[in-house]
Amino acid sequence: MEEKLQELKTRLGEIADFNAAANVLEWDQMTYMPPGGTAARAEQLATLRKTAHTLFVSDEIGRLLEELQAEVADLDYASDEASLIRATARDYERERKIPGWLVAEMAKATALAHEAWVQARAESDYPHFQPHLEKIVDLNIQIAEALGYKDRIYDALLDLFEPEMKTAQVAQVFDELKAKLVPLVRAIAEKKDAVDDAILFRDYDEEKQWAFGLDVLRQMGFDFERGRQDKSAHPFTTSFSPNDVRLTTRVYRNQFRTAIFGSIHEGGHALYEQGLSPTLERTPLCDGASMGIHESQSRLWENLVGRSRGFWTFYFPHLEELFPQQLDGVDLETFYKAINKVEPSMIRVEADEVTYNLHIFLRFEIENDILEGKVKLSDLPEAWNAKMKDYLGIVPANDAEGVLQDIHWSMGTIGYFPTYALGTLLSVQFYNQALTEIPEIPAQIERGEFAPLRTWLQERIHVHGKKFTPAELVKRVTGSELSARPFVEYVRAKYGDIYGL
Amino acid sequence: MEEKLQELKTRLGEIADFNAAANVLEWDQMTYMPPGGTAARAEQLATLRKTAHTLFVSDEIGRLLEELQAEVADLDYASDEASLIRATARDYERERKIPGWLVAEMAKATALAHEAWVQARAESDYPHFQPHLEKIVDLNIQIAEALGYKDRIYDALLDLFEPEMKTAQVAQVFDELKAKLVPLVRAIAEKKDAVDDAILFRDYDEEKQWAFGLDVLRQMGFDFERGRQDKSAHPFTTSFSPNDVRLTTRVYRNQFRTAIFGSIHEGGHALYEQGLSPTLERTPLCDGASMGIHESQSRLWENLVGRSRGFWTFYFPHLEELFPQQLDGVDLETFYKAINKVEPSMIRVEADEVTYNLHIFLRFEIENDILEGKVKLSDLPEAWNAKMKDYLGIVPANDAEGVLQDIHWSMGTIGYFPTYALGTLLSVQFYNQALTEIPEIPAQIERGEFAPLRTWLQERIHVHGKKFTPAELVKRVTGSELSARPFVEYVRAKYGDIYGL
Repeated sequence: MEEKLQELKTRLGEIADFNAAANVLEWDQMTYMPPGGTAARAEQLATLRKTAHTLFVSDEIGRLLEELQAEVADLDYASDEASLIRATARDYERERKIPGWLVAEMAKATALAHEAWVQARAESDYPHFQPHLEKIVDLNIQIAEALGYKDRIYDALLDLFEPEMKTAQVAQVFDELKAKLVPLVRAIAEKKDAVDDAILFRDYDEEKQWAFGLDVLRQMGFDFERGRQDKSAHPFTTSFSPNDVRLTTRVYRNQFRTAIFGSIHEGGHALYEQGLSPTLERTPLCDGASMGIHESQSRLWENLVGRSRGFWTFYFPHLEELFPQQLDGVDLETFYKAINKVEPSMIRVEADEVTYNLHIFLRFEIENDILEGKVKLSDLPEAWNAKMKDYLGIVPANDAEGVLQDIHWSMGTIGYFPTYALGTLLSVQFYNQALTEIPEIPAQIERGEFAPLRTWLQERIHVHGKKFTPAELVKRVTGSELSARPFVEYVRAKYGDIYGL
Repeated sequence: MEEKLQELKTRLGEIADFNAAANVLEWDQMTYMPPGGTAARAEQLATLRKTAHTLFVSDEIGRLLEELQAEVADLDYASDEASLIRATARDYERERKIPGWLVAEMAKATALAHEAWVQARAESDYPHFQPHLEKIVDLNIQIAEALGYKDRIYDALLDLFEPEMKTAQVAQVFDELKAKLVPLVRAIAEKKDAVDDAILFRDYDEEKQWAFGLDVLRQMGFDFERGRQDKSAHPFTTSFSPNDVRLTTRVYRNQFRTAIFGSIHEGGHALYEQGLSPTLERTPLCDGASMGIHESQSRLWENLVGRSRGFWTFYFPHLEELFPQQLDGVDLETFYKAINKVEPSMIRVEADEVTYNLHIFLRFEIENDILEGKVKLSDLPEAWNAKMKDYLGIVPANDAEGVLQDIHWSMGTIGYFPTYALGTLLSVQFYNQALTEIPEIPAQIERGEFAPLRTWLQERIHVHGKKFTPAELVKRVTGSELSARPFVEYVRAKYGDIYGL
């Protein structure tokens, strides 16, 4: 068995190298690549992703997995070895169904679509992006058909990001959430003058914002010897190894929230990647359990920590030193309320905690409609705007802040959006569990001590990588299942307090 | 034939993608990668380089080349097709001799050696680097033995960078050069007070230097839509496509020459890469003809253009605007002499045109001694310092400015250094030829018009990529062969004028 396992690891190690290299190329494309590099980059990414895919779905790996699965029964379920074989076999079964040319086509299409999206968004020119989106939707449908599904076509794609999650389950959770959130948003709207966030749109020097973000990341425990932060049009986190994790943010002079909450959010992702067990490196287990679990980490740091009164009890005095004029006459309580102002907004990434999930409902429904042919891509801007009006009561002034706002479709990902909401729900479940086990966490946060929380997250979640399915992991950590209730209770309490409901 | 050629191109295209991806990873390692990324990067590069090598030396490519070579006789020698088959067959024959594990070992060894070199140089700690150098020398000897050679072991390695060049020919050219340069250096030394370069060590703001370098690159014709400049410990240029060319430089506050001549030098390399024919993309022809030819372009721009009186006739007024205090009371002639001061110095990259080649003689001899076992690596610092004393009359204060000064050995390259001198000689031969055909070039340079020279270089040299051997190309462009004489005449005239000899 040892020998076969070693052979499997050697093969998986090389595949991991190809994927890591592709991640470097994508990171470069988002951060530093000149526009002229697009076409060549598309070819390079297609070759790397196709090679990784082809090597992975090879008969040899199938044979090794089959032989090893027969012998794995003796091993502890949670051991590196048993988990590697179990999780890899699951991936193998799925990937085998996708032909290599489709992987290459998707890599090429997305590399080209990225530049088109950047330009289309800059010029609010949806028709410039539409043909790329058509290609991507078409390829996604082909992938879904190749993977197969029982109930909804969306199931096949959702499973790529959130293993074993079904569209029906998402719809059910979303319905429950919707029923509780809509009245809350309405109640807050009636008291909207209770919070004023004008101070956040004053003139905040970009370099100082950047330096502040780096400080916060360092304090959170992000290790800059094993990672870095850069700028990009859309914030993201990627990893080439637990020892080389890259996050990005964007900085706007007149919007204080963007850079810092971008950094804290991506910092949550980045801590997950840096916290993976070194023993999992160069294997398929060296990854988050799912996109939803990954998002639980970023949302936990962004919201439960970063938007808490305790966090700013520690950081607000520091911020006052950095921006004495901008924060002249502003006290902690005013600042805390300002960063938590609830207001329907155009863009998910800038949304407050209460209206955030409404954006996800919109995407989830639109993506289902696209895949099921219920909306034509030429009508997408109208469909988008109609749902914005419906859920949030506002309509984008143009497609740049409407249908073109997010990077995901240009990256080829359809079926990804629900994981943002699932992660948001889970962030509260995980945080509540951490508080049960370490009641001092809020007091520690007030002193800028994030290590106990970070260590808890690392030991309970990060270190396991992709060993467990999301449902298994949630059960192991919290003892319960995914639920909308803890989140609803959390926002009701927090925003009831802020808005005096 | 068309079908076989297409199959060959498809295969070569994927190999080009792997090599381009590896170049991106190396660029990232030199510019932005955090220290923690080293070990994973070594694995990734090893996998990419090994894969590219394995795919290239495959039997299928051998078969295709053999069949195509039989049919190539009908084609024009200089056509893309005939050149592709001819040049690829030559590379194939050579690469077939190198086992894949050796390629992977070298990629891994150099990725690790790079960080060790950076640290060793920072702390002037040669023993920290020595084991890495031992590994690299050992791997180079194994490569040389695998490639085979008739006369000197150095021949096998030199051929990797300068196809068909022999150690004996280099030694002969160097001997001739030495005979002429040593008396010139001596004559200048007697008049060394004729030039004072103290003004170049005043306090030049780094951001202004950076902006000035970007201006010059733009004016030279470097297309920033198809490339960019970043900072790194050692300036270099790399390319992922003619449409994505990256150069680097370094900026020192108190050494004006470093950044700007670094930019102009690397800009010369970068124009070569941007000037390659688009029809050659994703083939082995999409590269410089040799390292010597590449260096002829960088040295031409750096010296014949950048260190000329005419260049600064155009740029000095602009520089005075940027640095009014630093250049207060300095006139063009004083500045021109200062940037051309001849003075034995520790480091090749900072050397003036006259003493530059002495550094190359030193490396050439030391590398031969290492490969032939005439010097032990533990004695290398002493051997280095002895030759510095011998050739330049100075001795490094420590190993950081001595044996550890350059990046090349850490990159695994032995046999590369002579190409710097060969390129320097060729730069004058090419420039003289350009002047013969376009006598207005000096007057154009005085007006900041670089397009005619750049276009001439592109049409005569760049566009051909690796179609011709260096000797063929030199003959095609200049009608003659590599020679030390034009360079000797050039430096005698220029420095005779500056030093009043």
